[in-house]
Amino acid sequence: MTYKVGIIGGTGYTGSELSRILCRHPDVELAALTSRANAGKKVSSVHTFLSGYTDIEFTEKISDTKDLDFVMVATPFGVAMDEVPALREQGIKCIDLSGDYRMKDPKVYEKWYGKEHTDPEGLKEAVFGLPELFRDKIKGASLVANPGCYATSAIIAIAPLMKSGLVHPDVFVDGKSGTSGAGMKPSERLHHPVCGESVIPYKVGTHRHQPEIAMAAGMFAGAEPDVAFVPHLIPIVRGIISSCYFRAKGEVTQEEVDEAFLKVYGKERFIHYVPEPSIRAVVGSNHAQVGSKILDGNRIVAFGVLDNLVKGASGQAVQNMNLMLGLPEADGLDFPGLGV
Amino acid sequence: MTYKVGIIGGTGYTGSELSRILCRHPDVELAALTSRANAGKKVSSVHTFLSGYTDIEFTEKISDTKDLDFVMVATPFGVAMDEVPALREQGIKCIDLSGDYRMKDPKVYEKWYGKEHTDPEGLKEAVFGLPELFRDKIKGASLVANPGCYATSAIIAIAPLMKSGLVHPDVFVDGKSGTSGAGMKPSERLHHPVCGESVIPYKVGTHRHQPEIAMAAGMFAGAEPDVAFVPHLIPIVRGIISSCYFRAKGEVTQEEVDEAFLKVYGKERFIHYVPEPSIRAVVGSNHAQVGSKILDGNRIVAFGVLDNLVKGASGQAVQNMNLMLGLPEADGLDFPGLGV
Amino acid sequence: MTYKVGIIGGTGYTGSELSRILCRHPDVELAALTSRANAGKKVSSVHTFLSGYTDIEFTEKISDTKDLDFVMVATPFGVAMDEVPALREQGIKCIDLSGDYRMKDPKVYEKWYGKEHTDPEGLKEAVFGLPELFRDKIKGASLVANPGCYATSAIIAIAPLMKSGLVHPDVFVDGKSGTSGAGMKPSERLHHPVCGESVIPYKVGTHRHQPEIAMAAGMFAGAEPDVAFVPHLIPIVRGIISSCYFRAKGEVTQEEVDEAFLKVYGKERFIHYVPEPSIRAVVGSNHAQVGSKILDGNRIVAFGVLDNLVKGASGQAVQNMNLMLGLPEADGLDFPGLGV
Amino acid sequence: MTYKVGIIGGTGYTGSELSRILCRHPDVELAALTSRANAGKKVSSVHTFLSGYTDIEFTEKISDTKDLDFVMVATPFGVAMDEVPALREQGIKCIDLSGDYRMKDPKVYEKWYGKEHTDPEGLKEAVFGLPELFRDKIKGASLVANPGCYATSAIIAIAPLMKSGLVHPDVFVDGKSGTSGAGMKPSERLHHPVCGESVIPYKVGTHRHQPEIAMAAGMFAGAEPDVAFVPHLIPIVRGIISSCYFRAKGEVTQEEVDEAFLKVYGKERFIHYVPEPSIRAVVGSNHAQVGSKILDGNRIVAFGVLDNLVKGASGQAVQNMNLMLGLPEADGLDFPGLGV
Repeated sequence: MTYKVGIIGGTGYTGSELSRILCRHPDVELAALTSRANAGKKVSSVHTFLSGYTDIEFTEKISDTKDLDFVMVATPFGVAMDEVPALREQGIKCIDLSGDYRMKDPKVYEKWYGKEHTDPEGLKEAVFGLPELFRDKIKGASLVANPGCYATSAIIAIAPLMKSGLVHPDVFVDGKSGTSGAGMKPSERLHHPVCGESVIPYKVGTHRHQPEIAMAAGMFAGAEPDVAFVPHLIPIVRGIISSCYFRAKGEVTQEEVDEAFLKVYGKERFIHYVPEPSIRAVVGSNHAQVGSKILDGNRIVAFGVLDNLVKGASGQAVQNMNLMLGLPEADGLDFPGLGV
Repeated sequence: MTYKVGIIGGTGYTGSELSRILCRHPDVELAALTSRANAGKKVSSVHTFLSGYTDIEFTEKISDTKDLDFVMVATPFGVAMDEVPALREQGIKCIDLSGDYRMKDPKVYEKWYGKEHTDPEGLKEAVFGLPELFRDKIKGASLVANPGCYATSAIIAIAPLMKSGLVHPDVFVDGKSGTSGAGMKPSERLHHPVCGESVIPYKVGTHRHQPEIAMAAGMFAGAEPDVAFVPHLIPIVRGIISSCYFRAKGEVTQEEVDEAFLKVYGKERFIHYVPEPSIRAVVGSNHAQVGSKILDGNRIVAFGVLDNLVKGASGQAVQNMNLMLGLPEADGLDFPGLGV
Repeated sequence: MTYKVGIIGGTGYTGSELSRILCRHPDVELAALTSRANAGKKVSSVHTFLSGYTDIEFTEKISDTKDLDFVMVATPFGVAMDEVPALREQGIKCIDLSGDYRMKDPKVYEKWYGKEHTDPEGLKEAVFGLPELFRDKIKGASLVANPGCYATSAIIAIAPLMKSGLVHPDVFVDGKSGTSGAGMKPSERLHHPVCGESVIPYKVGTHRHQPEIAMAAGMFAGAEPDVAFVPHLIPIVRGIISSCYFRAKGEVTQEEVDEAFLKVYGKERFIHYVPEPSIRAVVGSNHAQVGSKILDGNRIVAFGVLDNLVKGASGQAVQNMNLMLGLPEADGLDFPGLGV
Repeated sequence: MTYKVGIIGGTGYTGSELSRILCRHPDVELAALTSRANAGKKVSSVHTFLSGYTDIEFTEKISDTKDLDFVMVATPFGVAMDEVPALREQGIKCIDLSGDYRMKDPKVYEKWYGKEHTDPEGLKEAVFGLPELFRDKIKGASLVANPGCYATSAIIAIAPLMKSGLVHPDVFVDGKSGTSGAGMKPSERLHHPVCGESVIPYKVGTHRHQPEIAMAAGMFAGAEPDVAFVPHLIPIVRGIISSCYFRAKGEVTQEEVDEAFLKVYGKERFIHYVPEPSIRAVVGSNHAQVGSKILDGNRIVAFGVLDNLVKGASGQAVQNMNLMLGLPEADGLDFPGLGV
């Protein structure tokens, strides 16, 4: 069976990355991309890299396309919670790549996103879509909240240590992201002369991925840990590394740390525990690399590394979709990183 | 049938890129990679991005692996001409990605490569492997000389104009390449503090791709044209753009130029004639983009854009291999560029 | 005597670079910077790198400051021709860093800038401010048109060869510029994910510096030469290299070429004829490097390399100002490039 | 009086940066640069950016030049401790820019540098040269150990908070450095295709600047604090930002934090406490910027930002030299950062 998949928000970076993956997916037809600005235009005339891979045109609304089996929302936050309820009423499974369904508590959403949540029912049912940590729940879900790019990179580095009980339930997350994570809209901070030869800390202590990291880490730590998150903009296009700093509960050995990670990721297809995690090894792919080192016996650093547009967004969404549709988890994602 | 393919020179950038493509190729088994330095090690322990995609180990010599159907040589120049004759005697088809078999005349080889050619017979039979221009010859070849990265980007921009007769048989080629084109060996010019915030012309008028461009362009121009080639190192990792400058024979219109290119590439899967060729559109893929603009009526510029490691090297080699083995030309290469 | 200098347009990159130089100039007081957006704010609160170097505040209009001796205009084009006449009536010498006074013919201005010129008298009197080529005229000028960044880099590479008579009066200029040349306003092309790992040709054959290069080169070639100019955006912040391609009139030797350049620049403080011109050697300074190589006997390439914000804009403006005020030409500019 | 200054190790990045500053210093004559590889060559033929700024030639040994008043050592570690004693016997004041004289305890030196210290007497007398924190001691010193680039950036962010007593005596330092910090010798990690589009953690927990940070921070914390230092290589040429993470002793306000920093740096010429520290604001200059923010009440982050070759090495060395010679502290260093 071929599933008809639609994307709300097909112009932005996560939308075009979804198209790039889905147009090569063996069990899926890329059936709809919405874009107010580009409605009526061929998708491949806007995203020229898709020339020869899809013939469809942008439509204005997702309802312009009939008989969709699955919808992904790849817009800025605030749109999904208005669109998703009607889609789910029609029995269409959805994944939201924006932040609308990530927080469990509508008040936390309101605090961090500055908007009242209009679909608290959906919020209750939404499953946090990080497959390697919540695979079973995702399989049964009809609505998945796809994690943020920083959040994914931090959570995959934090969860095994929290679960192991080796560390105190607090962590400093120093996030370093390529510029594509900020989206396609030009702005002062993303202006090349400003960021091209610099490293820029921003939204210090106020970035929306912080409560997401805390919430997900809390599922492994028992209680919600103290998470302090400081993102930095790095002059690369794709790639994130989150360096996560922990205090160990006592003397800890490198072996114990290695074991904690291998226990969680040892059999995973897309997350690899390696001595030296590398952005180049994963960029362009759905793979992530994680590493961890003891520092002076009672401190630990763990790194989470991924391509922010793939495992940090659209690739992980396809991985979630595969699980929700009962397809092989790696379908459409089974290609290695660029390496160089 | 699954073909067993071996690679001589599996550590370098073109070798590892070949592995990256071949390990996902539907009709091929990646059966051997040689590396003196890494013999005995798992390939995926050196190229960690291949973890989960191949289980083989590096071997010392290509003869360590039996029953190979096809061999690619991805070493520095000077090795292929010593290895290829023995392989061909065993009936193994070969593609050389180094420069050993590109020049037709052994004296030209000696002049530009500073070495006597040890396989003049092979030189005679070798076919220049740029599929969109020499497809039929490649199909029947048992030895293909895979073009250089700069050469490919320049030739695909030059050939249609030379063929059209619209331009004088001379051209200035201003090549601009990412740093991966220079290979994996650290050197002063490739040292990040030297090249990371600079543009560096090098091998001015002495780069080995110059005679290759002249030779290939000559097949379309009637006589061999005057080619002046100046390469520049650009601080990006992957990607080449060659800006080629022509004097028109008379008043030429944009329509005539467009027609000249569409006639050659209008039906091609991997070369696209577009208004604004873009490195980002093709990077990570075997696609190339070509564009051309009239300047003031009697001058023309044409751009050839590609990923130096894919269409400029390993991807094009696989495309050639597919043709030589009678496989669908796009097998293993049917994925779009990164876009962002 | 200390001259009071004002800058119209103090927020943009050339305006802030002027401030950076003038605040350290031994004979000048940086007396006024205008900015509609920042009027009333301390200059050093907006340009924090000037903290400790100037205490003045932005003003709205240049007339808000009395007794100025000299004014620089560092706005987008179209402003200077409205502001300069009134200033000159008060006897204030002016340098325009925008394009308003570069073309001699108002019709050429209108064609390339898309605006009628409102100060044709000023146009007649304005001197093209490239000191190494037009020093004497600049000394006597009351209004100087500061050349464009690309234009300067190309003209210094072209003029000696045109003057020498060694080459045909035509040239292809392949310009490669860092991103700061495009100014401080965010735009799609300057968005880091778009340009950060790419090389982007733009305004092909339509860039406003083309007629400027042709005009200046024409002063040395006898007649105005055919100039075809193609600019490319490069992912570095500061720096330009223009690669200029010529056909020689006959067989030319490297010695003749070297002599042509040394004759013009041999005694210059800021332009250096070197074997391998380097952006890193000049970046951050008013120095430029020029190089030239014979290609195959009858072709020549010449490179012009500079920091687009210093020798390509604000540094050259200060050099011009020094000449116009009878000060030592290197005052305030006597510091080397970064090197690394 | 003009002081004659010599530099041991004039080829590397800190040596050439010292030359760049000293050749413009009002009270100093750049009298000697040693280089085994370049002995006999004009300095300006190797460092072309110094063309017109110095006429001297490289010499083989520092003793080849007579009557030096001051010597800087800008070699890799292990050389200074052999050269400095003889120079000091002749009454020549010295600054060592390598790590030889930074540790107080020879055993700590041996542990981190893997060599026995051959001048324990010098070690005792050497003063740690961070002027804003140890100005008085530097004034009276005859031997100064110039701090490391990472160390300077971290210590200036850590010291005020340790001194204030607001934080626990432990800190995680996430260092992010441009590539010039690693020196001029090509290596795999500094190879552009490897690092140009990546962020690479390295020497995790084993970098030699860690004990230096701990030692200096300890002078303000009472006891030596726990310092965990993880350096990351960033694809920029110049610039460091160290993000330092603290746990507050209790509820702390932003005002208290601001006050802690302003108390230490409020009147400083080269260190500025600002809301958003920026590499671009300081790059190319001896200025540093420091910032600090409360995170959720009981966590604090502080940033130290500087140009690794200037305030992180050669600029700071000149600042120290000025203090040691009784010259105005900003002599030769009184120029702003590039800004853009």
